[in-house]
Amino acid sequence: MSISQTSSQDILARLAQVVHERRSADPEKSYVARLLFKGEDAILKKIGEEATETVMAAKDGEPQKIINETADLWFHCLVMLELYGLQPSQVLDELARREGLSGLDEKAARKAKERE
Amino acid sequence: MSISQTSSQDILARLAQVVHERRSADPEKSYVARLLFKGEDAILKKIGEEATETVMAAKDGEPQKIINETADLWFHCLVMLELYGLQPSQVLDELARREGLSGLDEKAARKAKERE
Amino acid sequence: MSISQTSSQDILARLAQVVHERRSADPEKSYVARLLFKGEDAILKKIGEEATETVMAAKDGEPQKIINETADLWFHCLVMLELYGLQPSQVLDELARREGLSGLDEKAARKAKERE
Amino acid sequence: MSISQTSSQDILARLAQVVHERRSADPEKSYVARLLFKGEDAILKKIGEEATETVMAAKDGEPQKIINETADLWFHCLVMLELYGLQPSQVLDELARREGLSGLDEKAARKAKERE
Repeated sequence: MSISQTSSQDILARLAQVVHERRSADPEKSYVARLLFKGEDAILKKIGEEATETVMAAKDGEPQKIINETADLWFHCLVMLELYGLQPSQVLDELARREGLSGLDEKAARKAKERE
Repeated sequence: MSISQTSSQDILARLAQVVHERRSADPEKSYVARLLFKGEDAILKKIGEEATETVMAAKDGEPQKIINETADLWFHCLVMLELYGLQPSQVLDELARREGLSGLDEKAARKAKERE
Repeated sequence: MSISQTSSQDILARLAQVVHERRSADPEKSYVARLLFKGEDAILKKIGEEATETVMAAKDGEPQKIINETADLWFHCLVMLELYGLQPSQVLDELARREGLSGLDEKAARKAKERE
Repeated sequence: MSISQTSSQDILARLAQVVHERRSADPEKSYVARLLFKGEDAILKKIGEEATETVMAAKDGEPQKIINETADLWFHCLVMLELYGLQPSQVLDELARREGLSGLDEKAARKAKERE
């Protein structure tokens, strides 16, 4: 039975909490503390790097690698959100709002309108 | 009840389901159907593009823009996962597994080991 | 005389000059004029997009596609340089300086030092 | 007087030659040798990373940083080209060909056509 089916807790919220707690950890001992200590450019560079690795994993067509790299990408997004005092629930609310208000294609419609 | 009280697992699973259903929609009417119809390169290009837009939003330091662009990035990750028949729960399981097994810094330790 | 016997400096400088001239062209008729009119975010997004397409072409292992996408990437770098009033000769000078002063590995040494 | 104005040699071709020679150097002593030894994924990851750093430098609006990061990006493109046995002159020829044949906006026209 998979973790996501059993856990009654919110995985991303829990991870965000752990990331938040690591902020005050020793940068020598914690990767997350070190990244937050290095600051904005170091964290944003990781977003670009992990996105590239996700694309490469997809091109290689290896399912487990795609899952691992997407996990890396989302995890570094959590570190970035922490840097700006934001929560993953705000991202999920935005996704749910789009679905609720006008369907998943709202963004596309909006973007297409911008181009005109 | 606010949307954010629903778990991230639920929201992402529901969105993945909608993306899956759009697969058979009319590419003329649905952005998601069109993207899935165009295939791998079109979807992966969006991952790179949305990651760049997330980085730019962060540099601009506008919280709502950061949330919106991260939502765009995660959403296109869901479209990519759908293309390969994968589920967001598998990504969340991987994140939970890392936390459970050896802490959030496992990845860093693993990567550092690879470099040696 | 083949085009490639002309120096890279010459070709890039000539292209930069054309990009510069397009700045005042009609955005309706010129892709470059439109991109410069849209401004920073539109141009930087293209850098991320074309870099991703270069990575995908490399993964596909198609030589002509790699060349085309690298050309697209460098071309959009010229548009970015124009936006900030910079010249490709400044980038080439920087590359030549590194080679001249301390070898191609200077950057790596510098970066490695930063990490310590 | 800048290097690019005095040098009668082709800077990118000369750098590509140096990169080629480093291929057989000791990976312990040369950054380029190490990168080529690590192979495709390591090199392509750098393309994504340097593109992101270029975007961040542009957002910071620091001219020298933009030049340095663009130089890093182009340099890692040379390493990628070397990996596939390609030359920067082939990229420059492609850029010159586009200019010569149908103007800089050919690509845009082609892309726009593809979208239809």
